[in-house]
Amino acid sequence: MADSFPLPVFGGDAPLYDQLYRHIAAAIQSGALSPGSRLPSKRRLCALAGVSMSTVETAYSLLAAEGYVLAKPRSGYVCAHLLPPAPNPPAPVSESAPAPPPSRWAYDCSTSGVDTSVFPFSSWARITKEAVYENPGLLQRGHPQGDLPLRSALAELLAQYRGVRCSPEQVVVGAGADYLLSLLLQLLPEQRAIALEDPGYPAAYAAASLHGWEVVPVPVDGEGMDPEVLERSGAGLAYVTPSHQFPLGVTMPAGRRSRLLHWAASAPDRWLIEDDYDSEFRYSSRPIPALQGLDRAGRVVYMGTFSRSIAPAIRVAYMILPRSLLERYRATFSHGACTVSRFEQESLRRFITQGLYGRHLRRTGNLYRKKCALFTKALAEIPGATVSGADAGLHFLVTLPRFSEAELVERAAAKSVGIHPLSRYCHSVEPRPSTVVLGFAGLTEEELAQAAALLKKAWT
Amino acid sequence: MADSFPLPVFGGDAPLYDQLYRHIAAAIQSGALSPGSRLPSKRRLCALAGVSMSTVETAYSLLAAEGYVLAKPRSGYVCAHLLPPAPNPPAPVSESAPAPPPSRWAYDCSTSGVDTSVFPFSSWARITKEAVYENPGLLQRGHPQGDLPLRSALAELLAQYRGVRCSPEQVVVGAGADYLLSLLLQLLPEQRAIALEDPGYPAAYAAASLHGWEVVPVPVDGEGMDPEVLERSGAGLAYVTPSHQFPLGVTMPAGRRSRLLHWAASAPDRWLIEDDYDSEFRYSSRPIPALQGLDRAGRVVYMGTFSRSIAPAIRVAYMILPRSLLERYRATFSHGACTVSRFEQESLRRFITQGLYGRHLRRTGNLYRKKCALFTKALAEIPGATVSGADAGLHFLVTLPRFSEAELVERAAAKSVGIHPLSRYCHSVEPRPSTVVLGFAGLTEEELAQAAALLKKAWT
Repeated sequence: MADSFPLPVFGGDAPLYDQLYRHIAAAIQSGALSPGSRLPSKRRLCALAGVSMSTVETAYSLLAAEGYVLAKPRSGYVCAHLLPPAPNPPAPVSESAPAPPPSRWAYDCSTSGVDTSVFPFSSWARITKEAVYENPGLLQRGHPQGDLPLRSALAELLAQYRGVRCSPEQVVVGAGADYLLSLLLQLLPEQRAIALEDPGYPAAYAAASLHGWEVVPVPVDGEGMDPEVLERSGAGLAYVTPSHQFPLGVTMPAGRRSRLLHWAASAPDRWLIEDDYDSEFRYSSRPIPALQGLDRAGRVVYMGTFSRSIAPAIRVAYMILPRSLLERYRATFSHGACTVSRFEQESLRRFITQGLYGRHLRRTGNLYRKKCALFTKALAEIPGATVSGADAGLHFLVTLPRFSEAELVERAAAKSVGIHPLSRYCHSVEPRPSTVVLGFAGLTEEELAQAAALLKKAWT
Repeated sequence: MADSFPLPVFGGDAPLYDQLYRHIAAAIQSGALSPGSRLPSKRRLCALAGVSMSTVETAYSLLAAEGYVLAKPRSGYVCAHLLPPAPNPPAPVSESAPAPPPSRWAYDCSTSGVDTSVFPFSSWARITKEAVYENPGLLQRGHPQGDLPLRSALAELLAQYRGVRCSPEQVVVGAGADYLLSLLLQLLPEQRAIALEDPGYPAAYAAASLHGWEVVPVPVDGEGMDPEVLERSGAGLAYVTPSHQFPLGVTMPAGRRSRLLHWAASAPDRWLIEDDYDSEFRYSSRPIPALQGLDRAGRVVYMGTFSRSIAPAIRVAYMILPRSLLERYRATFSHGACTVSRFEQESLRRFITQGLYGRHLRRTGNLYRKKCALFTKALAEIPGATVSGADAGLHFLVTLPRFSEAELVERAAAKSVGIHPLSRYCHSVEPRPSTVVLGFAGLTEEELAQAAALLKKAWT
């Protein structure tokens, strides 16, 4: 036996015992050493392989510890009976993953871009460093809803900017609005139908389907989600974007807000999710207070994010739960940790409470107002074009009846301007004809002027 | 009409137009101003309220913009018909949330603590600052699976430390192992029964139930999950902790690994989740390579986290998907953003590639080895006590037949030492009698000596 023992070829940087161990384990795994067969004695293997006794001893004890061999009294080491490895050949392992594809467009007017040129790098770097240095306690596990100081700062900020009424205990911090939405969809299991705005936010549709909800698209009119269709839909949960409907850009007026609140309050277990995703930016009037602040019945879950108001890289979103859901939320999710790093939570808290967030909002707000005005003005000069939904937020619509929707998109693409067709966001409703969605936040003023000039050529 | 108009009492810091606007909106909302009634003319309200024309104009235009009033030609502004607010009174808003409760114990031997005393604060602060300063591009949205440079660093690290074979495109980065587990449970919808180790990790039980899976507890013997019970269970997915079973501390030998792989490969749509949660710390032999590295059939999802090896505050975990699941994963989840901040991803990448992570592992590994030896040695001196599962990881078991499990916990609690009963982790199996689970990582050596002395008194 020992003479037919497959000896290793040593080489490389790994310790000899490790090479020997791996060699024998592989031989057992592959069947080259059959179950029940004896390994050479330690002394014999020293001689055969030309290594020291301690090398062999270490390798054998590893093999025994891991169950490749069994130590039998007086017989030495015997190969264990391992089931053969699964038949399929190993999948080829490529050495590198493909890089993310570059944008296909010279001018990408998708709705997810933001302007990061005025991001206060030095303040953020300073704050981040302070957050690490001054808070060693933050290394330990924090509150599952997010740390109290950040939740307090958020409650105060939302009261001041958005008219949200809540205490810090109602605040839940999490890694992104989509993540928080998926928690909510898990939290309300007795409701299996969700009303979504049509046209509406694709990620909400995706999340609802993924979590097994029946999706009921409800048309959006000039004031937001249609409450009569909602009432008839049988849904117990409705997801709305009242500040700046995505993608139509409609702002829901007070009367409609009141009707939605009434819908929610008029039967048990009805809930509204108010996604206030880009409410920070409003150009033609001051921000409209949140639906949540008008809710007397405790049926509104308010959601917001810093992905647009600071940067997509800052994966911090929040939701404000009504008190009636708090206990259920805690029973369901309090075993987990908050998904946002505590250092980042503390950095954000400092950013808010030191007034840097307010300053950043004013700077970016002015920037976006200028960009929006510049871009819409240039596009409105295209004969027949109408701009809508541009009072707020980071995108708007253009309607140009001379071309079909597909033609508008294709002609823009031919000039390397990337825009989305409105139909992309439509489910059961027919999209308003000849209408496209344009985001402007991710392009510079110069790029917007160039994009507008190209679109003018494309669409004339 | 105008004479009965409820005038506001001005005060505070808010601009007058805002106070006026809020006052009238509230009056309309409450019904004090009835639908269809006319507001005073602008000029008249100026005189009545003693404010400027521009104040009134701004307030009225806000009210009109938000739908509280309608501008009627020649009639001025008329109150809109709002549905009455929902009947319930506003929930009381407490000013502060309760602080997280302090630990109930002077010595908390729970299994979730880690030692953060050797955390390299200055390196981490430097790295974090560099990550922000040197990478303005990181503000934009990154790859949904996590940024490629971090995924490459992880693939290399796992190959070197754990024998994991993967390319960076198989790596998914996310905010915590529980979060990634919940993604997996959403990814494998045709499988509705999951085999979980019994005793086992409570969060896995919670996640499986939450996502509507049928949970099949499979007993753990001295080598890990029992493969015969698994085979009979009908489950298509099994969740295991082969490196250091939670909570028994068993290391799965090669023979058992091979049988589990064989189980997974021998029918279509069978999957193993290998949670390698504290594999970084191994005291009596070198780390055993991961199950994933032995998997020829592409049926193992490997999961790991930095919560224990760095700190709970660092919310970064990862999973390695087999290639056969990659496409499905991308189709299901690629619309969302990665849940880890890109700055933190870049900080972690630098921490790994600059060799700081390896150094930190060596330092904490030595620290934990000493702590584990100190604590187990002191506890083994208690007459009748047996320590098990202490070869690796951050917790172990103590069995002491003189007392019942409940007595062991209660007597420890009476000395203010917090420990967990083994039955806490058991579902269908009877827990090994008189056995408790002790974590040691979160206490200093001095505290461990004191805790051991107290336990000696409590258990003698």
